[in-house]
Amino acid sequence: MQRSIATVSISGTLVEKLTAIQAAGFEGVEIFENDLLYFDGSPADVRRIAEDLGLKIMLFQPFRDFDGVSAERLARNLDRAKRKFDVMHELGTDRILVCSNVSPDTLCDDALMTDQLGALAQAAQAAGVIAGYEALAWGKHVKTYRHAWKLVNAVNHPNLGLVLDSFHTLSLNDTVEGIADIPGERIAFVQIADAPKLAMDVLEWSRHYRCFPGQGDFDVANFTAQVVKSGYTGPLSLEIFNDGFRAAPTTITAADGHRSLLFLEEQARALLETSRQPVGELYEPPAAPAHVGYQFLEFAVDHTTRAHLADWLGKLRFRQAGQHRSKDVTLYQHGAASIVLNAEPDSFANAFFQQHGLSLCASAFRVDDARQAFERAAGFGYAPFSGQVGPNERVLPAVQAPDGSLNYFVDETPDQPTLFEADFILTDINGPAEVGPLSRIDHVCLAVPANSLDTWVLFLRTAFGFEAEPGVLVPDPYGLVRSRALRSRDGSVRVVLNASVDHHTAVAEALHTYHGSGLNHVAFSTSDIFSAIPEFVADGLPVLRIPRNYYDDLAARYALPDETLDALREHNILYDRDERGGEFFHAYTEQLDQRFFMEIVERRGGYDGYGAGNAAVRLAAQAQRRR
Amino acid sequence: MQRSIATVSISGTLVEKLTAIQAAGFEGVEIFENDLLYFDGSPADVRRIAEDLGLKIMLFQPFRDFDGVSAERLARNLDRAKRKFDVMHELGTDRILVCSNVSPDTLCDDALMTDQLGALAQAAQAAGVIAGYEALAWGKHVKTYRHAWKLVNAVNHPNLGLVLDSFHTLSLNDTVEGIADIPGERIAFVQIADAPKLAMDVLEWSRHYRCFPGQGDFDVANFTAQVVKSGYTGPLSLEIFNDGFRAAPTTITAADGHRSLLFLEEQARALLETSRQPVGELYEPPAAPAHVGYQFLEFAVDHTTRAHLADWLGKLRFRQAGQHRSKDVTLYQHGAASIVLNAEPDSFANAFFQQHGLSLCASAFRVDDARQAFERAAGFGYAPFSGQVGPNERVLPAVQAPDGSLNYFVDETPDQPTLFEADFILTDINGPAEVGPLSRIDHVCLAVPANSLDTWVLFLRTAFGFEAEPGVLVPDPYGLVRSRALRSRDGSVRVVLNASVDHHTAVAEALHTYHGSGLNHVAFSTSDIFSAIPEFVADGLPVLRIPRNYYDDLAARYALPDETLDALREHNILYDRDERGGEFFHAYTEQLDQRFFMEIVERRGGYDGYGAGNAAVRLAAQAQRRR
Repeated sequence: MQRSIATVSISGTLVEKLTAIQAAGFEGVEIFENDLLYFDGSPADVRRIAEDLGLKIMLFQPFRDFDGVSAERLARNLDRAKRKFDVMHELGTDRILVCSNVSPDTLCDDALMTDQLGALAQAAQAAGVIAGYEALAWGKHVKTYRHAWKLVNAVNHPNLGLVLDSFHTLSLNDTVEGIADIPGERIAFVQIADAPKLAMDVLEWSRHYRCFPGQGDFDVANFTAQVVKSGYTGPLSLEIFNDGFRAAPTTITAADGHRSLLFLEEQARALLETSRQPVGELYEPPAAPAHVGYQFLEFAVDHTTRAHLADWLGKLRFRQAGQHRSKDVTLYQHGAASIVLNAEPDSFANAFFQQHGLSLCASAFRVDDARQAFERAAGFGYAPFSGQVGPNERVLPAVQAPDGSLNYFVDETPDQPTLFEADFILTDINGPAEVGPLSRIDHVCLAVPANSLDTWVLFLRTAFGFEAEPGVLVPDPYGLVRSRALRSRDGSVRVVLNASVDHHTAVAEALHTYHGSGLNHVAFSTSDIFSAIPEFVADGLPVLRIPRNYYDDLAARYALPDETLDALREHNILYDRDERGGEFFHAYTEQLDQRFFMEIVERRGGYDGYGAGNAAVRLAAQAQRRR
Repeated sequence: MQRSIATVSISGTLVEKLTAIQAAGFEGVEIFENDLLYFDGSPADVRRIAEDLGLKIMLFQPFRDFDGVSAERLARNLDRAKRKFDVMHELGTDRILVCSNVSPDTLCDDALMTDQLGALAQAAQAAGVIAGYEALAWGKHVKTYRHAWKLVNAVNHPNLGLVLDSFHTLSLNDTVEGIADIPGERIAFVQIADAPKLAMDVLEWSRHYRCFPGQGDFDVANFTAQVVKSGYTGPLSLEIFNDGFRAAPTTITAADGHRSLLFLEEQARALLETSRQPVGELYEPPAAPAHVGYQFLEFAVDHTTRAHLADWLGKLRFRQAGQHRSKDVTLYQHGAASIVLNAEPDSFANAFFQQHGLSLCASAFRVDDARQAFERAAGFGYAPFSGQVGPNERVLPAVQAPDGSLNYFVDETPDQPTLFEADFILTDINGPAEVGPLSRIDHVCLAVPANSLDTWVLFLRTAFGFEAEPGVLVPDPYGLVRSRALRSRDGSVRVVLNASVDHHTAVAEALHTYHGSGLNHVAFSTSDIFSAIPEFVADGLPVLRIPRNYYDDLAARYALPDETLDALREHNILYDRDERGGEFFHAYTEQLDQRFFMEIVERRGGYDGYGAGNAAVRLAAQAQRRR
């Protein structure tokens, strides 16, 4: 499909917008009228700029409150339309979006509306343009695509088509299956928007909370599949009103928009293939990898911070398992959890350290096919990375995450040296005699800037095919934290994104004095937290103290045995229980060098969350420690 | 009335909250349970801290989902309640808030609920505490105070009272008149919250958008008047869930809360006095002044910026009207508009200049009684200011605005020297032979940080008795601007507050590199903008160029005569029309020293707005000028 985006979807001046839209890979653009009004140049100038960029102006929009009016008003509206047709000629576009009347004094009369839309179609024909009629979800009389189609069909004129917009249909919980029955050639244009499910006025929702496909809760994929079934072959065009996007960097938002359309096409294609329907020209990326867990987490360190982190890892019973063959890189392992500390000069890690200090500079995913996984991520527009590799060492394909850190893909071939065998001199090749209480990395929690949460969600969903859970809000003593968890389909890789809307955090982000360059904490799994924590504490691991009042409240909320409560309290372990009786026990370390911390978790009975209800307790405890 | 606030209303740790609440002047506090859970100390420690501060713990809250449950669940709930009663004893409070059950499996049976609340009352009696029952607007069965009162009245037990919360009542558009009929001694507690009118789910609205009385749209004054009529003499306690407050400075929010209660009491008192009812102990400040316009605006300048500003004022046909008798301060006048440029060393203005550069450091309001006006503002807790005064010069009472600038109050006595005569050597005492086209200051637009918009609204409403109009959102190319206009009751003084949620502005605010220290622009009135603008332009005033496309759209929207459109276009004048046919013509200057700009406005036919629809055009034009 041709891919397009409305100028209203991104920030900046019109020239900045067009430049970013072209750079993101779009073939076309909708000119939102206000962007033209604000532009100090003629419509012909806009046309030239777009042509120079190789961008097609797909649509001019919106034209409001045309239909269901008095005869006197109709004459004025037709005059108004002809003026806009003139602008369209200058712009070099043949299509205008006409949205259903929202005025309280709309005359709610289908026959009258059909007549008036017929008059518009004739005027459009005279001007050589096509008017597309769209039902706004909050239209006074016409609210649904079925109703709009009924009118357009009744007019039955080649210069009047139907415009579909996924938001207007899905926000009303309208069924989308009727779309496939509309003749595709009568659909003049298709606009695409996703949105989080919110219980609010649909107009406000539409104007402020739309987002790109993959970032929200709507089934935009099925909507798109129905559009393809109709035979429509025109553009899919993003029209996103989002307060965050209005203030976000233009080029990043445009790039996210483009990849969100590719992702949408992949999903729609899958739906169509399942029902054995033609898939048209929908984008087909390499399939998302079947993840089998974290291969390793890599920290950028210098010698001082390496000593601190190695000390903590020692207290968590990690052992030093290997030394890199050609670089100043050390491998630590405990169970299936591998941590790499990279102090190599002149490396990516070193550059990352210069910028961020002690930080998580890379995450490696163990996948079934690393090359295919890389090609998928790169196909979605994430920048490939390749670093220095010594003789016989493994070349790991990688892409850059939104914060500039790396995501490596690793696969292993039977009977070949493993990555660690190839790259490291393993000091402890048969594993330690003593097995520690940790089994693996449970999840990684990243602290991301508030205005890049959606960018991260899209990254994890598109590049790796992760699934997203609904977002939650957690109160911090100095603001709110917006949190969203994602995971690979098999649940083996879990990432929690935390975006603080705390004023202090916003300032720190702005100043690039933000701590930890992304990592909030790493959580390790154990099958026996009540023995693991005292073992670590005996070795000197500083565990975050939890207020005693928390345990008094636990006692009031849950019928927990006294000895369990006593043990929780003694070891500063937090507790959560899900609706099916699954239980979560977790404890936090203090912060390491004021940057990030670690969590020890035990899941019982299929508990599948992250103890979100306890996050506020942890944030408050940390805030009190900082005083 | 006793004044109280819930700890959830402000940011910080529990100790920070209590300290700020005491400093703001509150007599009591509600302990929100989560704040206790997060506190690393015992409830008895909290009691001691509050006692040391002289704060009374008025209430412990909330206790949820007690009523309308199975017999088995009731037993657990009563056990849970007894545990909380123990906490209350430690805290030293005798009152707990029990809110109506929101669980989907609530048993909706008034008789059962009455029995269960009766059991709670007996448990409360045994523990020597009082349970207050509150209807949540989104309760499963009990949503209104009438329903809650029906149950409480049926229980008829001294240890069970009713809790009222203005949000729960006003968000449902429920009538408040029934409150007066409830015996005041049966009302256990009264919570107060205002909110903007929003079309959204009431739970989300309540959890994120409450605000202090005077900042929102609810008629909290009438609610409070009804509470007083009931005979209730307990505390009025603010319970505000607001995302912005959670991230705002603790002490400022607490101070705003306290003054919002004083303001609420003033309004409730006025309602009661009008209906000749007893007013109890409601706060009575000096009456708000009858404003008669801006006396002057004062800019902090050095010699360089004074020359720039004086040059612009000259192009706007201001004349240099006087020189201060003892200070390096110059007076410029045009019509009734007076501008003072203050370059005096070792002055407040100089300190302000050091901090902000060229900036608006003071606004003076001409009032009927300056002393009374000052006492009102100071009574609401705004810091008084007095500067150096020379012999025979006028002492002007003043308070500090939220940005640290000053608001002076000026009155004049018949047959006495005017302020300008007293303080200035007037160079042009009989006025110039040539009268310019400007008449007065129409309005002042201040740029305020996004998280202090509510603080400013409260400042202008309480200190000066201004009325607030609903807020509007204006798109800027790089974000959104939230705008709210306030005015004196006679309309002679108008202030527009613009809060940018643009990321760049947020950073600039955080870094204190924010331009203009508050002033966005000053608007001057004229009765003939079509002759004024060319006159100013001829003198060299740089007028902001408006895109031609704007005028093409005006032509499509309004049936304006061609010569009017041509004149608008020629002079870069913007146009707006209200629903009653009132018209607004306005033009902007370029920015002066990249700090602020000026606007020339002409109002016709009773137009009373600010051309909000054109603000986006102006913002886009300015953004393109900055490229």
